[in-house]
Amino acid sequence: MAKVNTNFDNLVPSYLFAEIAKRVTDFTKENPDKPVIRLGIGDVTLPLAPIVIDAMKKGCDELGNKETFKGYPDYEGYLFAREAVANYYKSFGVEVDADEILINDGAKSDAGNITDIFSQDNIVLVPDPVYPVYVDTNIMGGRKIVYVNGTEENGFNPEPDSSVHADLIYLCSPNNPTGAAMNKSQLKAWVDYAIANNAIIFYDSAYEAFIEDPDIPRSIFAIEGARKCAIEMCSLSKTAGFTGTRCGYTVIPKELEMDGKNIYKLWYRRQSTKFNGVSYPVQCGLAAVFSEEGLKQIQENLSYYKENAKIIAKTLDELGISYTGGINSPYIWLKCPNGMGSWEFFDYLLNNVYVVGTPGEGFGEMGKGWFRLTAFGSRENTIEAMERFKKLLGK
Amino acid sequence: MAKVNTNFDNLVPSYLFAEIAKRVTDFTKENPDKPVIRLGIGDVTLPLAPIVIDAMKKGCDELGNKETFKGYPDYEGYLFAREAVANYYKSFGVEVDADEILINDGAKSDAGNITDIFSQDNIVLVPDPVYPVYVDTNIMGGRKIVYVNGTEENGFNPEPDSSVHADLIYLCSPNNPTGAAMNKSQLKAWVDYAIANNAIIFYDSAYEAFIEDPDIPRSIFAIEGARKCAIEMCSLSKTAGFTGTRCGYTVIPKELEMDGKNIYKLWYRRQSTKFNGVSYPVQCGLAAVFSEEGLKQIQENLSYYKENAKIIAKTLDELGISYTGGINSPYIWLKCPNGMGSWEFFDYLLNNVYVVGTPGEGFGEMGKGWFRLTAFGSRENTIEAMERFKKLLGK
Repeated sequence: MAKVNTNFDNLVPSYLFAEIAKRVTDFTKENPDKPVIRLGIGDVTLPLAPIVIDAMKKGCDELGNKETFKGYPDYEGYLFAREAVANYYKSFGVEVDADEILINDGAKSDAGNITDIFSQDNIVLVPDPVYPVYVDTNIMGGRKIVYVNGTEENGFNPEPDSSVHADLIYLCSPNNPTGAAMNKSQLKAWVDYAIANNAIIFYDSAYEAFIEDPDIPRSIFAIEGARKCAIEMCSLSKTAGFTGTRCGYTVIPKELEMDGKNIYKLWYRRQSTKFNGVSYPVQCGLAAVFSEEGLKQIQENLSYYKENAKIIAKTLDELGISYTGGINSPYIWLKCPNGMGSWEFFDYLLNNVYVVGTPGEGFGEMGKGWFRLTAFGSRENTIEAMERFKKLLGK
Repeated sequence: MAKVNTNFDNLVPSYLFAEIAKRVTDFTKENPDKPVIRLGIGDVTLPLAPIVIDAMKKGCDELGNKETFKGYPDYEGYLFAREAVANYYKSFGVEVDADEILINDGAKSDAGNITDIFSQDNIVLVPDPVYPVYVDTNIMGGRKIVYVNGTEENGFNPEPDSSVHADLIYLCSPNNPTGAAMNKSQLKAWVDYAIANNAIIFYDSAYEAFIEDPDIPRSIFAIEGARKCAIEMCSLSKTAGFTGTRCGYTVIPKELEMDGKNIYKLWYRRQSTKFNGVSYPVQCGLAAVFSEEGLKQIQENLSYYKENAKIIAKTLDELGISYTGGINSPYIWLKCPNGMGSWEFFDYLLNNVYVVGTPGEGFGEMGKGWFRLTAFGSRENTIEAMERFKKLLGK
């Protein structure tokens, strides 16, 4: 009989967003006149930049013409796309070669699939709270997971613990869900820990475009030693609104070796067997994002979201509510006031001021008593939601 | 230390296309005046249909407008795309529900990833010769593989052997590389075998659009019992020239259960964890392919390739060379004349008439002494190549 992967039995069913949707639906059914504002959304809302649309449409036209038609793309992405990413890295002072970049259909696919090239008997280290993909992927793969705790005291930037060994390490900075961003010395501590443990860091830099502070690295490869231990995954989802367009990139230093094997070559072998590359017009869109004009155009949306984040952060400052993020990140991770639990605060906000956020405990044990707001709503709604916060939570 | 997946050590490096490229390059360097014709190509060459380009460009425009912007797509694909596929199935008399369809970025990704939901200790059955992805995926996963042999005697449509047990079965019909297509009774024998073994069939129908014979099923779900044992994967790569556009679909009957688990639900859990759906404009393109006008427009390219296949088949008939395919398939799988080996015949063709094909042994042991030609070249080149075949191989 065909036997299923029983590791799936160990997954915890994720009811978070389903439960949020249910509570909001119930509320609006009973209170059809109450103007609900959703600040829980983790998806972008502003359209793609004009230069990106033009490039994608030009790419479509090329597919419609015999002379310019494109068949199977390179597994690692077109050179023009990889060079565009390499130039982008150069723009913030990090040198990576186009041959170290692989274009993907979003960072989630690579973050989920990268463990294919690693043995089952590695110990995986994950910070808590955490983007659930890192945990669920390794539960499916039957790996042992150890956690490091993000807390109010460490600003949700937990340090490595030299007494704990790990082989594969997931880091996300600026972080989802906490918005906390590691500075150079914090990230250097993780690189040193990885090298000491002969471990590999999977570095998720999906929110790097929100970084404003020059002491916060945009890439792990800004840190000395990272080329000996790190793989970086990024996406255009938040950088340029590509959540529905689907494109990102993974960077693997050509010299990165582990357990006697070249990691780029192993990953290339995996991808050439189980993946057929990214749609040509989408890669044209990626290259347009990283053109000189593209980088200007995407700033418009980024500035809009950043300003929303600041409006939320400023309100929390006024109300004396602890939080991380709000700067260098589209997320604001706040401590539920008056000792409320995550779901308790969710109901309190919904029932009293009709504002929807995300209960922190959906992201792990350490999220209990915390709550996530995002900057992806409209300006008008963000301002109005914060007015309601002040009314409800002001002294 | 991070330990790599040592199953990768068991992969046989694929030098097939690299070796072909090397020999052709060497030849053209020494013989710059000789007009080489490539009939080894496994990629389409004709452009996308106009209605597809229009739909994709409209999709791009929607992403550029705040009112019509699309964020994260559904993991399983937009309903409009899944309904388009369901209607397509209906057009050839097979009922599958839109809720049983999952849109993907090409059949290769799903064919490669589907084993994530199955245990390592399943026995995998693969016909030889074979599309290398089925074999390599399971080598990476550390599974035991058993082969059934395609031979001249069984027309490269091997029957199941009831004395051999298997849990997971890969079938591809019309086949790559042999072009052999299973008729209803041949396919029914496999469905019966799968049910008797409590096995799952992964059915790759990537070339179904080339089927002309009404006794050759376009889908495994045309066979009674298949809903109890089969998952079907298809792609628009060959149906509509989507090799560079990247879109396909997987069909999993909602009631398919194995080992006490619902297979659709397991796969959905895998995909929602490690995949974020397909680009919106690409899904618009898929829906356009399956519109009434789209189905008319894609016939133009399909007819062109089919006619090329017939020209090759007719020439082989005239020359008395055994082959499979040529009808119901873009592939022609021929027995190397005069007892030549695959590579021997490759060199013989290249050196004497400057025609490039693919040595059959690149697809498995049973491909030794066989050779693959494809219908994806231009009409002019196909006719000219066949004239050269007649000159070289005619009595």
